[in-house]
Amino acid sequence: MSNPSILILPGDGIGPEVMAEVRKVITWFGDKRDIQFDVSEDLVGGAAYDAHGTPLHDDTMAKAQAVDAVLLGAVGGPKYDVLDFSVKPERGLLRLRKEMDLFSNLRPAQCFDALADFSSLKKDVVAGLDIMIVRELTSGIYFGEPRGIIEEGNERVGINTQRYTESEIERVARSAFELAMRRDKKLCSMEKANVMESGILWREVVTEVSKDYPEVELSHMYADAGAMQLCRWPKQFDVIVTDNLFGDLLSDAAAMLTGSLGMLPSASLGAPMDNGRPKAMYEPVHGSAPDIAGEGKANPIACILSFAMALRYSFDLGDEATRLESAINTVLEKGVRTADLLGEEGVTPVSTSGMGDAIIVAL
Amino acid sequence: MSNPSILILPGDGIGPEVMAEVRKVITWFGDKRDIQFDVSEDLVGGAAYDAHGTPLHDDTMAKAQAVDAVLLGAVGGPKYDVLDFSVKPERGLLRLRKEMDLFSNLRPAQCFDALADFSSLKKDVVAGLDIMIVRELTSGIYFGEPRGIIEEGNERVGINTQRYTESEIERVARSAFELAMRRDKKLCSMEKANVMESGILWREVVTEVSKDYPEVELSHMYADAGAMQLCRWPKQFDVIVTDNLFGDLLSDAAAMLTGSLGMLPSASLGAPMDNGRPKAMYEPVHGSAPDIAGEGKANPIACILSFAMALRYSFDLGDEATRLESAINTVLEKGVRTADLLGEEGVTPVSTSGMGDAIIVAL
Ligand SMILES: CC(C)[C@H](C(=O)O)[C@@H](O)C(=O)O
Ligand SMILES: CC(C)[C@H](C(=O)O)[C@@H](O)C(=O)O
Repeated sequence: MSNPSILILPGDGIGPEVMAEVRKVITWFGDKRDIQFDVSEDLVGGAAYDAHGTPLHDDTMAKAQAVDAVLLGAVGGPKYDVLDFSVKPERGLLRLRKEMDLFSNLRPAQCFDALADFSSLKKDVVAGLDIMIVRELTSGIYFGEPRGIIEEGNERVGINTQRYTESEIERVARSAFELAMRRDKKLCSMEKANVMESGILWREVVTEVSKDYPEVELSHMYADAGAMQLCRWPKQFDVIVTDNLFGDLLSDAAAMLTGSLGMLPSASLGAPMDNGRPKAMYEPVHGSAPDIAGEGKANPIACILSFAMALRYSFDLGDEATRLESAINTVLEKGVRTADLLGEEGVTPVSTSGMGDAIIVAL
Repeated sequence: MSNPSILILPGDGIGPEVMAEVRKVITWFGDKRDIQFDVSEDLVGGAAYDAHGTPLHDDTMAKAQAVDAVLLGAVGGPKYDVLDFSVKPERGLLRLRKEMDLFSNLRPAQCFDALADFSSLKKDVVAGLDIMIVRELTSGIYFGEPRGIIEEGNERVGINTQRYTESEIERVARSAFELAMRRDKKLCSMEKANVMESGILWREVVTEVSKDYPEVELSHMYADAGAMQLCRWPKQFDVIVTDNLFGDLLSDAAAMLTGSLGMLPSASLGAPMDNGRPKAMYEPVHGSAPDIAGEGKANPIACILSFAMALRYSFDLGDEATRLESAINTVLEKGVRTADLLGEEGVTPVSTSGMGDAIIVAL
């Protein structure tokens, strides 16, 4: 039987740097644990545009469809701001999500004990925080038609469409309930059913799906109240499920609560493939950080934790994922810190690759 | 010449209680400062539904159009959750906003020194915070057509439309620049121009308007990054301008940062009327809080500060507004606290009306 396959798309900015550290980890698993992957690499985002005039080449798209998991670094940078909407780096990422049909985006917001002081929130508000935001990723206003800028009368009008079918809501709700079952069995669904009909349908379908998960305590919250409650007392949540656009804002706010954006991974999952594995893409929550690219300042942990999520969700290697996460914890407890996490007394500053090496040692 | 007119719409839940305290303040201004208003009162939200089967009677709408300023308490409550979308309490509020064409919603997020400890954020992150969010209030996905739940194939589809014309963006941008000119001359515009064409148009129009305000430093931020930055270091902002839906989430998050939702007012302004005053409605940011309604626990300060905004923006009585705000500050410095602000040592707990009385004494 052939090895499971991984496509690495480092992308732009700090993407290639942090991905180099993930490579070290993959090699370590091959050498020391005899867990082998067939790894290939390709371009996405601005890097792909520079090479091919498109942020995602059709060949790359085909490769992504064929592998067991995609690991993505980050896309975008000021250099590409002038490009037309249709070829901006982000379009590459959105095309991957859409064509791989990765409808369930898992964004953990976890606060690492060693880093609780980095949050702008009080320590007791964030210490031990561990919530999971499940964001719908392939529909809603990101992809709905009609869209565009049209002429009407004497002026231009910008139009986007929020559109959710029952089955789109149902499948992401189901994935959130499944997750809640493996966690604290609490799910909060967020929309604006008081203002938007798509939110009414969202609430109805989630409520309907909840009948199959009687053990899970389901609640509903308007997304604005959700934003508030995340800032006030985030520990009230276990799993949150919400749509593409609300999920974008709420998961970023939640990520920032932990104080360490350079630490947060994500998984985007689709339907099971023939081999039973879900279509999957893993990426750090942080962006391409062009201001520090190439300086060895980037924190590779978010990207390495994304690989840990791949071990868990794509390759059924939960124990190995835990091993990797523990190694990262050990390194943090020892006070090893990349540039984004400096400021405390008695810590050891390291570069991007220094952090990767420290994690390998801890493994 | 007749007195300026105010229509009071107490609404539901704690609305009537907090509005009773505003009445005391209005009476004080009449008695002691000889500033007289013609005050009338009517129903909105669930209260209007109970009386008339609609959350806003046409007569009330006509009165709101005719007065110089509307003061609104709050709408909604669990009792009305079962109602059809078209007659929910919120529809009354949305109709007022839309038909009065109150396109510019000013939501200050200010942290009162005496209350900085109430924030879930660290004191240095919020102490002295004073930002103003300008939210577009009459367009976008709240009102765009087509909307609804339709049948398609074998399933239902929920649809809402985000729609912004150039002139809608321009007028709210202008009001934000005007505000920035009277503050620290910094404006940050938030959208998702990387994903939504309506965001691209938004960014273009705001940039165009900025040419008329060369003194104002304009920046653009994606709304997800904006949510993050509000949680990380809100003091980086002075004025923020954003659309209806993003404004809903971002202003609620910003409000919660201050730690005291019971303290935050808002003003919704439209075009100038014949008498030069803008169409205007003032309301606290907090909701109807049905769980504590009728118990004398509600904090009337947000509603009283909304009246202060009315003095400033509708009646050109900035000095009187400042007088009222100072009185509130004095009361807080003395340690007078409603139930939402208890927890510290050495404070004096008071009821809703106790707080109103204390403010009158301080005046
Ligand atoms: C880069 C951008 C298109 C993307 C999004 O809006 O989804 C990002 O913000 C994210 O959350 O992954
Ligand atoms: C009550 C609701 C319709 C309203 C809104 O969504 O605008 C509220 O959340 C607000 O922010 O004023």
